Amino acid sequence: MDKTKIGLIGLGTVGSGVAQLLLDHGDRTARHAGRVLWLEKVAVRDLNRPRDCELPAGVLTDQLDEVINHPEIEVVAELMGGVDLAREVVLRSLAAGKDVVTANKALLAAHGPELCDAARKHCRTIAFEASVAGGVPIITNLSQCLSANQVTSLTGILNGTCNFILAKMHSEGTPYGQALEEAQRLGYAEADPALDVNGADTAQKLAILAHLAFGARVAWEEIPCVGIDTLDVADIQHAQQMGYVIKLLGVAELTPDGVQLSVGPTLVRRGGAMADVSGPMNAVHVRADAVGELFYQGPGAGQMPTASAVVADLIDTAAGRTRVTFQTLELWSDRSSRVEMADPKMAVGGYYLRFMVDDTPGVLAKITGVLGEHAISISSVLQHEASDGSAPLVIMTHDTTEGEAVEACCDIAALDCVRSTPVGMRVRG
Amino acid sequence: MDKTKIGLIGLGTVGSGVAQLLLDHGDRTARHAGRVLWLEKVAVRDLNRPRDCELPAGVLTDQLDEVINHPEIEVVAELMGGVDLAREVVLRSLAAGKDVVTANKALLAAHGPELCDAARKHCRTIAFEASVAGGVPIITNLSQCLSANQVTSLTGILNGTCNFILAKMHSEGTPYGQALEEAQRLGYAEADPALDVNGADTAQKLAILAHLAFGARVAWEEIPCVGIDTLDVADIQHAQQMGYVIKLLGVAELTPDGVQLSVGPTLVRRGGAMADVSGPMNAVHVRADAVGELFYQGPGAGQMPTASAVVADLIDTAAGRTRVTFQTLELWSDRSSRVEMADPKMAVGGYYLRFMVDDTPGVLAKITGVLGEHAISISSVLQHEASDGSAPLVIMTHDTTEGEAVEACCDIAALDCVRSTPVGMRVRG
Ligand SMILES: NC(=O)c1ccc[n+]([C@@H]2O[C@H](COP(=O)([O-])OP(=O)(O)OC[C@H]3O[C@@H](n4cnc5c(N)ncnc54)[C@H](OP(=O)(O)O)[C@@H]3O)[C@@H](O)[C@H]2O)c1
Ligand SMILES: NC(=O)c1ccc[n+]([C@@H]2O[C@H](COP(=O)([O-])OP(=O)(O)OC[C@H]3O[C@@H](n4cnc5c(N)ncnc54)[C@H](OP(=O)(O)O)[C@@H]3O)[C@@H](O)[C@H]2O)c1
Repeated sequence: MDKTKIGLIGLGTVGSGVAQLLLDHGDRTARHAGRVLWLEKVAVRDLNRPRDCELPAGVLTDQLDEVINHPEIEVVAELMGGVDLAREVVLRSLAAGKDVVTANKALLAAHGPELCDAARKHCRTIAFEASVAGGVPIITNLSQCLSANQVTSLTGILNGTCNFILAKMHSEGTPYGQALEEAQRLGYAEADPALDVNGADTAQKLAILAHLAFGARVAWEEIPCVGIDTLDVADIQHAQQMGYVIKLLGVAELTPDGVQLSVGPTLVRRGGAMADVSGPMNAVHVRADAVGELFYQGPGAGQMPTASAVVADLIDTAAGRTRVTFQTLELWSDRSSRVEMADPKMAVGGYYLRFMVDDTPGVLAKITGVLGEHAISISSVLQHEASDGSAPLVIMTHDTTEGEAVEACCDIAALDCVRSTPVGMRVRG
Repeated sequence: MDKTKIGLIGLGTVGSGVAQLLLDHGDRTARHAGRVLWLEKVAVRDLNRPRDCELPAGVLTDQLDEVINHPEIEVVAELMGGVDLAREVVLRSLAAGKDVVTANKALLAAHGPELCDAARKHCRTIAFEASVAGGVPIITNLSQCLSANQVTSLTGILNGTCNFILAKMHSEGTPYGQALEEAQRLGYAEADPALDVNGADTAQKLAILAHLAFGARVAWEEIPCVGIDTLDVADIQHAQQMGYVIKLLGVAELTPDGVQLSVGPTLVRRGGAMADVSGPMNAVHVRADAVGELFYQGPGAGQMPTASAVVADLIDTAAGRTRVTFQTLELWSDRSSRVEMADPKMAVGGYYLRFMVDDTPGVLAKITGVLGEHAISISSVLQHEASDGSAPLVIMTHDTTEGEAVEACCDIAALDCVRSTPVGMRVRG
């Protein structure tokens, strides 16, 4: 049977899992690829670091070039993380005639167009299933299985750390800081979890999915993005009382004005599939014009789930499927900027609004008056008991625009009877 | 741009949907296939039947040969249904050098090996995404996305008609016959729904999935199969009282003795994703050693969801991905009989047992005595009030084998105090 020689850059969490699958399960990879995937070289930073996976002699190196310029390696998997050096590694691998597989969403979100152009120039391919939603094969599903459809909306829980923290806050009333500590203790959160909890990681993944689903070419920094790091457990409790669960969602919707993108904590109705996504799981809901609605759920990160996605890409690349997909889709090429970005202010939906108000007569009238001026109609109100002379006032609105909701909140914040910055979140389904 | 000429056999529910996607959305298919999918010919039985989709002049024919032997058609989609003639159409198309796409699970379940052998012989391919779970792309996910995994179990709601009927029985206490009538009225059930409700349709689909997931080569008729057509709404109510929902599941599990396959009404715990699958939806839960657990949900039938899957196959075939997959997987070839079938009697699990018993002292002791003789331990008992001198006695057991459960039920049925045939169903998760 023919061999395809594989090189890995990085033998950390994901790299070790990939090496393990390649070394221990050659039968599977051979059966699906029609050829042996042969682990030829693995580059790391520190040769002396203890590893939990044993490589055959001569495979490990601390010289990137031994992978990138290896004359017989045909596919390089970039599993080192980071952006600048990873970019260089991918560009040099492509230039050296290697196909590339990567799990690095930050790299793709920052340099997707440049890398894909380079791949096309050198007649090579880039595959990146593991970069979004870990073990959930959403990239292949969007770019291949749904090819007869126009996707009309895509909603995802794309960061397992945030979902774990939110689940903790819901089930046990744990405050945000403490839930984050637990996520770190259990190894779900990175040492520096800033990009997880501020929503940046979700925005990077959403930018990739929106490109596949809509041909949207958007810089992830431009996606309106709110994290969970400022979320008050009180709002979780109010939401629960009203039959909702708060999830950090990345949302892409096709509207008459273009694609509407956003990332933020969102109220979803209890009992639906999204609300039930538990712990560090990821999920994606896709609505598309032919198939209707599809829902995917699975592990969004972790060593073996992520390695499962990387090795599937290695197999597709070695077998020749990636070539077909990459060539026809022309990812991040000029041809593929197929849609406009819609104005985020025009995003339509219901809102959850919470104000801390003085416990004095006439407050509700003033606030609903301001909402009325912005043509925002109210679907329900929850006024809690006061303590310390102030009380939380929760208002659920009917559909309005993001622009009106934000302006109304500004006007309401300026009222004397309102004590702190209003809280506003989108409500879905 | 190059063209791939397509021929359809059948312009019924699915065929019309496929024609519509090909004719109205050439841009999508071209973008994903890298070439134009050109609808060249469509064969039907009756040229004069009114159609809800308009074809260009000269495309419709009532001569099968005009598709099968068309010199320029490269891919034939068999969308006529049935088994014998469909088999002939597929064999002749392959022999004439055409790749084949089909939505016909009955055909594959009956003649998969013969058809795939013929395709290999003629260096052609067969794609069949639409044959299982309609719009849910479970075939591609199993044969491509999960290629780095050993699947260890697969559980599916694979028949939308049954799921609709069961949902009705649960939510409204509708008796089986009436729920079936409503499914027919709404167009979910076939005119002759026998194969849906007796579980045969689910068994056929399970045989296909088990082949992809485990390399199991099993005749669907050999899969132990119970339908929903004998289900008593009383059991639905008892299950609900104990926190369960009854679903018709197809299950394939890897055990130390081989693959264990079964189809039958099964109690699943309320609150889990499977229990929440509503109306005519399908769902598949996969457990695999690298990725862990994945859950897919979507429309299991219907014109456009099914057409979405057929057209994805047409695109994959025209673009060249199907060739890679079909060649490497060697479906239903001799090489692929990779596992033994486990003895169904050895299937392990908890059981729901219901007996109609005399309302006399000592009955519970007698029945639990028999269970004890079969080493079956009890997890809970629900004894209902008697009417007419008899009462339902519901017993949930801890893990036992199918063989012991069946034997115990036989012994219990022979007791004087037991009035009618005992009811037994598996319990999962
Ligand atoms: N972890 C997950 O669950 C997960 C999920 C989805 C995607 N990803 C993505 O997968 C990628 C890898 O993540 P990870 O968690 O596996 O990271 P990690 O555990 O930190 O491993 C990084 C690896 O890269 C090597 N490396 C770093 N800089 C290097 C350099 N200059 N030269 C050679 N080797 C270098 C390290 O070498 P040493 O071992 O010698 O330090 C280490 O083996 C990232 O892009 C991440 O976003 C991760
Ligand atoms: N319907 C679904 O939701 C669904 C979902 C998944 C899979 N499937 C599968 O898809 C296949 C088609 O189902 P369907 O619901 O579309 O069936 P259908 O509505 O009954 O359509 C069958 C078509 O085949 C044509 N046909 C039948 N016998 C023929 C013959 N001898 N020569 C030429 N044409 C012939 C019929 O022609 P006339 O129009 O002239 O009668 C009709 O156009 C079946 O295998 C089914 O199991 C269906």
